[in-house]
Amino acid sequence: MSSQRIATVQPVDEGDATGKVAEIYADIRATKQIDFVPNFWRVLATNPAQLETVWTSLKRLMHPEAVGRTSALDPQTREIIALAVSATNGCAYCINSHTAAALKHGLDRSALGEVMAIAGLFNMTNALADGYQIEPDVKPPLE
Amino acid sequence: MSSQRIATVQPVDEGDATGKVAEIYADIRATKQIDFVPNFWRVLATNPAQLETVWTSLKRLMHPEAVGRTSALDPQTREIIALAVSATNGCAYCINSHTAAALKHGLDRSALGEVMAIAGLFNMTNALADGYQIEPDVKPPLE
Amino acid sequence: MSSQRIATVQPVDEGDATGKVAEIYADIRATKQIDFVPNFWRVLATNPAQLETVWTSLKRLMHPEAVGRTSALDPQTREIIALAVSATNGCAYCINSHTAAALKHGLDRSALGEVMAIAGLFNMTNALADGYQIEPDVKPPLE
Amino acid sequence: MSSQRIATVQPVDEGDATGKVAEIYADIRATKQIDFVPNFWRVLATNPAQLETVWTSLKRLMHPEAVGRTSALDPQTREIIALAVSATNGCAYCINSHTAAALKHGLDRSALGEVMAIAGLFNMTNALADGYQIEPDVKPPLE
Amino acid sequence: MSSQRIATVQPVDEGDATGKVAEIYADIRATKQIDFVPNFWRVLATNPAQLETVWTSLKRLMHPEAVGRTSALDPQTREIIALAVSATNGCAYCINSHTAAALKHGLDRSALGEVMAIAGLFNMTNALADGYQIEPDVKPPLE
Amino acid sequence: MSSQRIATVQPVDEGDATGKVAEIYADIRATKQIDFVPNFWRVLATNPAQLETVWTSLKRLMHPEAVGRTSALDPQTREIIALAVSATNGCAYCINSHTAAALKHGLDRSALGEVMAIAGLFNMTNALADGYQIEPDVKPPLE
Repeated sequence: MSSQRIATVQPVDEGDATGKVAEIYADIRATKQIDFVPNFWRVLATNPAQLETVWTSLKRLMHPEAVGRTSALDPQTREIIALAVSATNGCAYCINSHTAAALKHGLDRSALGEVMAIAGLFNMTNALADGYQIEPDVKPPLE
Repeated sequence: MSSQRIATVQPVDEGDATGKVAEIYADIRATKQIDFVPNFWRVLATNPAQLETVWTSLKRLMHPEAVGRTSALDPQTREIIALAVSATNGCAYCINSHTAAALKHGLDRSALGEVMAIAGLFNMTNALADGYQIEPDVKPPLE
Repeated sequence: MSSQRIATVQPVDEGDATGKVAEIYADIRATKQIDFVPNFWRVLATNPAQLETVWTSLKRLMHPEAVGRTSALDPQTREIIALAVSATNGCAYCINSHTAAALKHGLDRSALGEVMAIAGLFNMTNALADGYQIEPDVKPPLE
Repeated sequence: MSSQRIATVQPVDEGDATGKVAEIYADIRATKQIDFVPNFWRVLATNPAQLETVWTSLKRLMHPEAVGRTSALDPQTREIIALAVSATNGCAYCINSHTAAALKHGLDRSALGEVMAIAGLFNMTNALADGYQIEPDVKPPLE
Repeated sequence: MSSQRIATVQPVDEGDATGKVAEIYADIRATKQIDFVPNFWRVLATNPAQLETVWTSLKRLMHPEAVGRTSALDPQTREIIALAVSATNGCAYCINSHTAAALKHGLDRSALGEVMAIAGLFNMTNALADGYQIEPDVKPPLE
Repeated sequence: MSSQRIATVQPVDEGDATGKVAEIYADIRATKQIDFVPNFWRVLATNPAQLETVWTSLKRLMHPEAVGRTSALDPQTREIIALAVSATNGCAYCINSHTAAALKHGLDRSALGEVMAIAGLFNMTNALADGYQIEPDVKPPLE
């Protein structure tokens, strides 16, 4: 079965998935309510332990309701964190994916501009605080 | 007037500030409602244009009410972005400062754990998506 | 009015700009002496506060003469810093833009090689000094 | 012979250096015109091939006159690149060392502020250009 | 029960751990064959879901025998990867911890020098390849 | 002689190389046992000192047998380090090149999955340890 080249490895097509991988593919489609398995997961599936590790972590943190957990953060805020991290690291796949998810969760393009502007701002201040080796003047309050 | 060594340069003490620097120091204390000027700003003041550039940006984005602007994000969410970026970059000064600010804005230590866990998660997925050079399968929807 | 897709958001075309955005677009063209508004600024314009914050900072630091300021660094050196940072972060847009600007300011391709070689070298030594957690043996002299 | 712990490994003291390591130590003192071997080099010496690789590279690029080479960049500009990279990466040892070197080469603390402000600025714009996945609108001119 | 301040939050002491956290603490001590719970895990425990997510991932990947899995990599190679990543990111806690673990798994300080030298080298070539925006000339062979 | 555009600068074609550059090109082909000079080296050749610095370092560390040196690490492990660093930095050229090299040295796609999963894991734990500013609880043993 042929597959379009999308990465440095040949991804595992949905039609070729068996056992644990097929199970996780089904869980991804059900949990995310989508009708295909994104490239990211099909590439991780080239090593099933990797697929399971990453999916278990992401499901627990980003889909808490699916594991019976209550999150202190709403879905939009969780995607905002994903975006801020991905912009800082410059990860193209992740930026595309999490921008789409954030917009789907109601962030409009002006609010996206605030997220980006603030993420950009702190990349600037981080370089400055590190660049001068400034000592903390504040310790977070301990409860 | 002596000053403790806190950086690679000698910071400008509040008592030594004059002109534009003194004005900005006063604005920092008033806008942030604190009674001292943090190390970060006293170090930037070694070059007044730098102090003005960074303070103008931070004031506009993090204290929108002070410039008559309405932000689409609440103060806690803005500090969450600051924390996610600072954790990704590993900036000690910034992490201390923004953890304190986030707690002050009502994030408790369990919610802080969610912010960190999610920031950590996406540092992992960013390395994976980049490490395999995975092609985006989604384009953010254009309005 | 249609616009080519160039980012995760739809940029604001010059013909669609009004008010504050149109003003800043005009200032960008005049200050940079170019006859179009680069993609970067047209994307930032999706949130006018973001456009204003970033343009104000960049204008003050990279076009000091336009704000009546004197810089201690010449334009080529400023572009060299931009390049070294952008190479370290691997930002494609920025590398293209600042390589072009540095060449325009008189850096030839052999000198560009020195900038890159030195930026590369210190990315190596940074990883080594951090990787061994080496303690500083020198404190910068305080004036 | 005892040695203060300064890193994750025990550095090679000057009195303990023999053969290739002793030779390179002497070259470092002579080339840099200093009377001690900095921690960085004494730590790298725990693997002589590593010491030789890094010293050979740094000597060629940062002390071109010592290898009969002409550099297109002056010593202060070379240290500015080192600083901009080290601030971006947040490397404490390197920031201390290169701030001291830049000041020694005539950069004063106000000019240092410009280097930092510009390095900070482009860490911001890098995050923005990456965070929106903006396409280059310019290709550097080829000679 | 009092606890030394070791982070931006108050860690959960072993004596204070109950339920899921106490279970994971016991699993960490047993799996790693150590008689205390490292700071890292006691800090993550401030949010039990975070502790569980990270420990489950790390246990599966770094202690495969404990979950009945066979790894294609030996323990020393796994620690070498941890070190190379931590040196690249400049994470102090992680560098200390993984240097100790790598030495425990038989890497001596000369071999550690090779790991560091190679990690340093590729931080240099990464900056160069990115800094020039070089196009890949090779595609990894697909099986 | 024309050359396809592959970078921000015009690379030096093999047919145009003379003197030191031609010598190094020949050494690259011989040492790596390939019949062409990769883009990376043809771009570095735009500044011969840069080409020599980087090639000398890479040859010594990655082709130790070619300089009569014995390495404590086997070739596959050396490529694994290259991959872990390149995935962390998100360098496309380097990821392609080192994935190909690692596969050539016998790493199969499942083992590649372990390398990536572990590199990803430690990018997560690095962000967490830094994000909480956790103090080291372990010092690497000194021999």
